[in-house]
Amino acid sequence: MGALDEGHYHAEIDNEVSFELGFETQPETLVIQDAVRVLLQGLGEDINREGIKKTPFRVAKALRQGTRGYKQKVNDIVHGALFPEAGLEGGSGQAGGVGGLVIVRDLDLFSYCESCLLPFQVKCHVGYVPSGKRVVGLSKLSRVADIFAKRLQSPQRLADEVCTALQHGIKPTGVAVVLQCMHIHFPNFESAFLDSTSQGWVKITATSGSGVFEDGNADVWTDFWSLLKFRGISIDNAHRRSSGQSWCPSQSCGMPGQANSAMTNAVNSILKSLGEDPLREELVETPSRFVKWFMNFRNSNLEMKLNGFVRSRIDTRSPQGGNFNDGICSELNLSFWSQCEHHLLPFQGVVHIGYHSSDGVNPVGRPLVQSVVHFYGFKLQVQERVTRQIAETVSSFLGEDIIVVVEANHTCMISRGIEKFGSNTATFAVLGRFSTDPVARAKFLQSLPDSGSAGR
Amino acid sequence: MGALDEGHYHAEIDNEVSFELGFETQPETLVIQDAVRVLLQGLGEDINREGIKKTPFRVAKALRQGTRGYKQKVNDIVHGALFPEAGLEGGSGQAGGVGGLVIVRDLDLFSYCESCLLPFQVKCHVGYVPSGKRVVGLSKLSRVADIFAKRLQSPQRLADEVCTALQHGIKPTGVAVVLQCMHIHFPNFESAFLDSTSQGWVKITATSGSGVFEDGNADVWTDFWSLLKFRGISIDNAHRRSSGQSWCPSQSCGMPGQANSAMTNAVNSILKSLGEDPLREELVETPSRFVKWFMNFRNSNLEMKLNGFVRSRIDTRSPQGGNFNDGICSELNLSFWSQCEHHLLPFQGVVHIGYHSSDGVNPVGRPLVQSVVHFYGFKLQVQERVTRQIAETVSSFLGEDIIVVVEANHTCMISRGIEKFGSNTATFAVLGRFSTDPVARAKFLQSLPDSGSAGR
Repeated sequence: MGALDEGHYHAEIDNEVSFELGFETQPETLVIQDAVRVLLQGLGEDINREGIKKTPFRVAKALRQGTRGYKQKVNDIVHGALFPEAGLEGGSGQAGGVGGLVIVRDLDLFSYCESCLLPFQVKCHVGYVPSGKRVVGLSKLSRVADIFAKRLQSPQRLADEVCTALQHGIKPTGVAVVLQCMHIHFPNFESAFLDSTSQGWVKITATSGSGVFEDGNADVWTDFWSLLKFRGISIDNAHRRSSGQSWCPSQSCGMPGQANSAMTNAVNSILKSLGEDPLREELVETPSRFVKWFMNFRNSNLEMKLNGFVRSRIDTRSPQGGNFNDGICSELNLSFWSQCEHHLLPFQGVVHIGYHSSDGVNPVGRPLVQSVVHFYGFKLQVQERVTRQIAETVSSFLGEDIIVVVEANHTCMISRGIEKFGSNTATFAVLGRFSTDPVARAKFLQSLPDSGSAGR
Repeated sequence: MGALDEGHYHAEIDNEVSFELGFETQPETLVIQDAVRVLLQGLGEDINREGIKKTPFRVAKALRQGTRGYKQKVNDIVHGALFPEAGLEGGSGQAGGVGGLVIVRDLDLFSYCESCLLPFQVKCHVGYVPSGKRVVGLSKLSRVADIFAKRLQSPQRLADEVCTALQHGIKPTGVAVVLQCMHIHFPNFESAFLDSTSQGWVKITATSGSGVFEDGNADVWTDFWSLLKFRGISIDNAHRRSSGQSWCPSQSCGMPGQANSAMTNAVNSILKSLGEDPLREELVETPSRFVKWFMNFRNSNLEMKLNGFVRSRIDTRSPQGGNFNDGICSELNLSFWSQCEHHLLPFQGVVHIGYHSSDGVNPVGRPLVQSVVHFYGFKLQVQERVTRQIAETVSSFLGEDIIVVVEANHTCMISRGIEKFGSNTATFAVLGRFSTDPVARAKFLQSLPDSGSAGR
């Protein structure tokens, strides 16, 4: 076990220190910041505006941290953590350090889509069959997977790279990798208005095997799937190697149109700064796809014109008589996409709006309310602001008593150093009676759908 | 917004770099390593044995990383991330940067129990009501909570410290913190044999509020709970400040007995090295509690004596005629606790054992099989080894055809740098016919219970 020498202590620590000191003055960081300024200006933003003036730095930090895998080495991680472990003493069979499948299930990771540069979530299941009377520390399976996740990836490439690296690093009888990947489904500004149902995530399962797992029909795969099946994974929905189609929603929109060349050049310089080759086949169209998507959030000074849509102006005063709470109406689960102005990463979820109507009728109809949500969503935003803007605008046609709840998953909370995969943010705006009457709020809040599955 | 100056860039980065370079030669690290050697020797271990010879270093690294919060400052995190944000323009109500509740839900954290030094898991929900036309970056709520989680804590102290720090750091109208905490339920060696049902976790909910949340009956708490209720939290099971009782299972075992003083002194020196005061009231008994628990895993060279328990020796040869698969029997969900020898942290879960019996009868009864599991669990272990040892031992009385599946949650995968909260490890041992017959394995694996909830 020559690999267990002291020198590996340092390597292991270096792999954990995800961030170099002095990072903020490194050329790569400065190049990314400049590129982000070009992108912000392309959206029509004032790059000195409070709220986004530090965005170039934040984006550079997030991107470099999120792609640190380019600088990490598998051997540094694995070699310090191979432990001698006996196999069976006599008898026929496999266990311990010789044979005997080992699986670590449900490792949460995130990666960056090489097709559109957005982060995607990964539920990773990885296993191997030990040989040579040695086993690897369980956490190393996670750390090795993370090295390759922290690069620009597709699910199949990621599965293959993790598998190959573990096979070379541990030299076991075989390695199996199953990845359940979730990519945000991001409609563009126009399609969101046309199809509000396309909410949520694009999901795909990618698998890779080496050694005894090389044959996808091998019996050992049957054992592996058996131990995964109670965690919601079955072989039926596994993505097969042969399907060459990209899963990224950006590719199903057809070829990107003519994009602003200053902006695509800026994205190209970001790719180079991360250590990628912008001429790699899968990356050639990435800058234009990214810019096309990013332009959905261009700044607009247009006021939303609503009067033409309002069928009949309702009396926006609170009712003087009768029971206010009997007239509480709601529009729930309005779909919602936006872009975090601090990190230039999407946040997405649902909006619930409560209002008062003595006849129980929405005077303008749900589609107009949904349009208001999209109008304020498709900008560089913070969730608190979009909540307020929606409340202010709908109060002009749904009355002065308004409650708005926005529930969103923030990509910036799953990627970057924070990595809080299951987190979800709720914001509140209350106008008129809803701001003073807790009973009215409670009545509306009780009508909210289960948010545990919202947007997942 | 003077707080938005460039100087805060550095502070923010320093807070993310969780690990100092040169850490391995610092006096605190060396003191912890020496203390861990004393603890290992107290268990009767050979500290030069492959597998544990680097354990003192790993434990020092994990402990110092897991308690790095003692060195982090809230203001460094918060002040760089306060953003100007308008409130409502005219009209009555609250939204945006003035009023309008903001909640981040389901943040996964871990902390260390001040009573027994084991890590515990936290599902953190934190919110505030903005004031002064400014909001804080959402991720900072998580980062501030993490500063206090990365210390020795009790749930209530943790909730109070996070709440107070955010109130001082953001100066909002109010802050609310709700923590759902899960502590491993760790029976000692003797009680595990007596009561195999006490599996799983001790759960508690702690809350803390400041400003408008100071009164636990305030209406704004009702709003807060409404937005949590679909995530499995209700006010009914909330832990109230008044209940002074400790939740830690180590405290319900009564006062610790006479512990090895070299070992308790070693734990005292660890507490000091982490930056704690061992004379703090809550910590005074911690070293003896830790040592008492730790001694459950003392090395024993005793062979397990089984013959006296075996009611009738069965024929251990595989059946020559008939259908082997018709005789597959199983003992499922045998409870299981052990201690990871790499990190001195518990891992815990269930063991499933399959065997062949032509008459469908377990010749020795479930209690003896459960005893074998405990016998091998209560040692310093790795999961691959304990799986093999259980298989080898049960084959002496359940026959030569054996399959063992161990499913476990490893505390070392949720604490330390790895923080994979939902991960779960499965290991396999197959003897005799089960090693060669995939149909027999499949038949047994199909009988396994849903592992998604095992041990949770």
